Amino acid sequence: MPKLWNETIEEHRRAVREAVLKVTAALVAEQGLRGVTMSRIAEGTGIGRATLYKYFSDVESILAAWHERRIAGHLEELAALRDGPGSPGTRLTAVLDAYAGIQRRRHGHDPASGAALHRGPHVAHAERRLLRFLGDLLAEGVAAGEVRDDMAPEELAAYCLHALGAAGGLPSEAAARTLVRVTVDGLRPARRA
Amino acid sequence: MPKLWNETIEEHRRAVREAVLKVTAALVAEQGLRGVTMSRIAEGTGIGRATLYKYFSDVESILAAWHERRIAGHLEELAALRDGPGSPGTRLTAVLDAYAGIQRRRHGHDPASGAALHRGPHVAHAERRLLRFLGDLLAEGVAAGEVRDDMAPEELAAYCLHALGAAGGLPSEAAARTLVRVTVDGLRPARRA
Repeated sequence: MPKLWNETIEEHRRAVREAVLKVTAALVAEQGLRGVTMSRIAEGTGIGRATLYKYFSDVESILAAWHERRIAGHLEELAALRDGPGSPGTRLTAVLDAYAGIQRRRHGHDPASGAALHRGPHVAHAERRLLRFLGDLLAEGVAAGEVRDDMAPEELAAYCLHALGAAGGLPSEAAARTLVRVTVDGLRPARRA
Repeated sequence: MPKLWNETIEEHRRAVREAVLKVTAALVAEQGLRGVTMSRIAEGTGIGRATLYKYFSDVESILAAWHERRIAGHLEELAALRDGPGSPGTRLTAVLDAYAGIQRRRHGHDPASGAALHRGPHVAHAERRLLRFLGDLLAEGVAAGEVRDDMAPEELAAYCLHALGAAGGLPSEAAARTLVRVTVDGLRPARRA
């Protein structure tokens, strides 16, 4: 049960929102996107349905809020790896390994509802941020002689994200890591044939 | 003007269909997907609107028929390159160069209508065929020592198609060819780091 009766209305609202998003995350993890309904959220939070509808007009807007937070969490996770120790190449592999894992886990969702969520503007925004920061990391890699210089870093970043989209169809984390190795091998300075 | 009055009804129908798809292709090339309307097709073919509606219930079904044929044409083009001269690696690069060009030209279409077309079952079918034949070509490449053997050929095929999806955002054919080089470099037998 969330602590609903806080000192201020603002805190109260935030607590309700947190409780809703927490229960939503649990429902998605257990039953997939289709398992999330207003009734189950009301039940899981202990918030009455009437109150719930004052906060969110429908289940789609709850899923959108949950997804936006999830995407933001992924970006933070990837940014932490980018800022970690090691050469640009090492950090790039760490970021791409994590991204491939995210892509692979995404695949479990119901494709139709998942596609609807992914058309949201927050996804396009997150992808642009990710392309930019991967591009910066790749530019560092070029400067360090670890990454090929015959293609613009931001174009190489797009190559990485597209290539790792293939992680969605892979059967294991090990296969996803191999996909990252394949992708990263494509980034290495061109060798003489 | 198409030759509409042939010996048999079947030939006549085929001629109408051909004329419609030919005019549709020209309209898409000139004005994009949104430029295709029943009126313009009627005008371009010289077929009355009433007759046109007996063949196709709406412009969406005309676009679907046009797209299905276009995709089939692309598959034939790629299969011819696969069956061309040279080592598996040479033929693979030729196939991927052509595929990247197709992806790049696709980008000119209106994204929303384009996405609707691409949800059609014929696209999924064509993608499966393409994955299968690229997988076969990659397996030949593995046998010839030109392609890495630490990932299944069909998974490498998925990597290729995903990676070349990035061609859609590239500014030139030259950039698309570089993307193919990057992608193919990822396929080479693993080198010691």
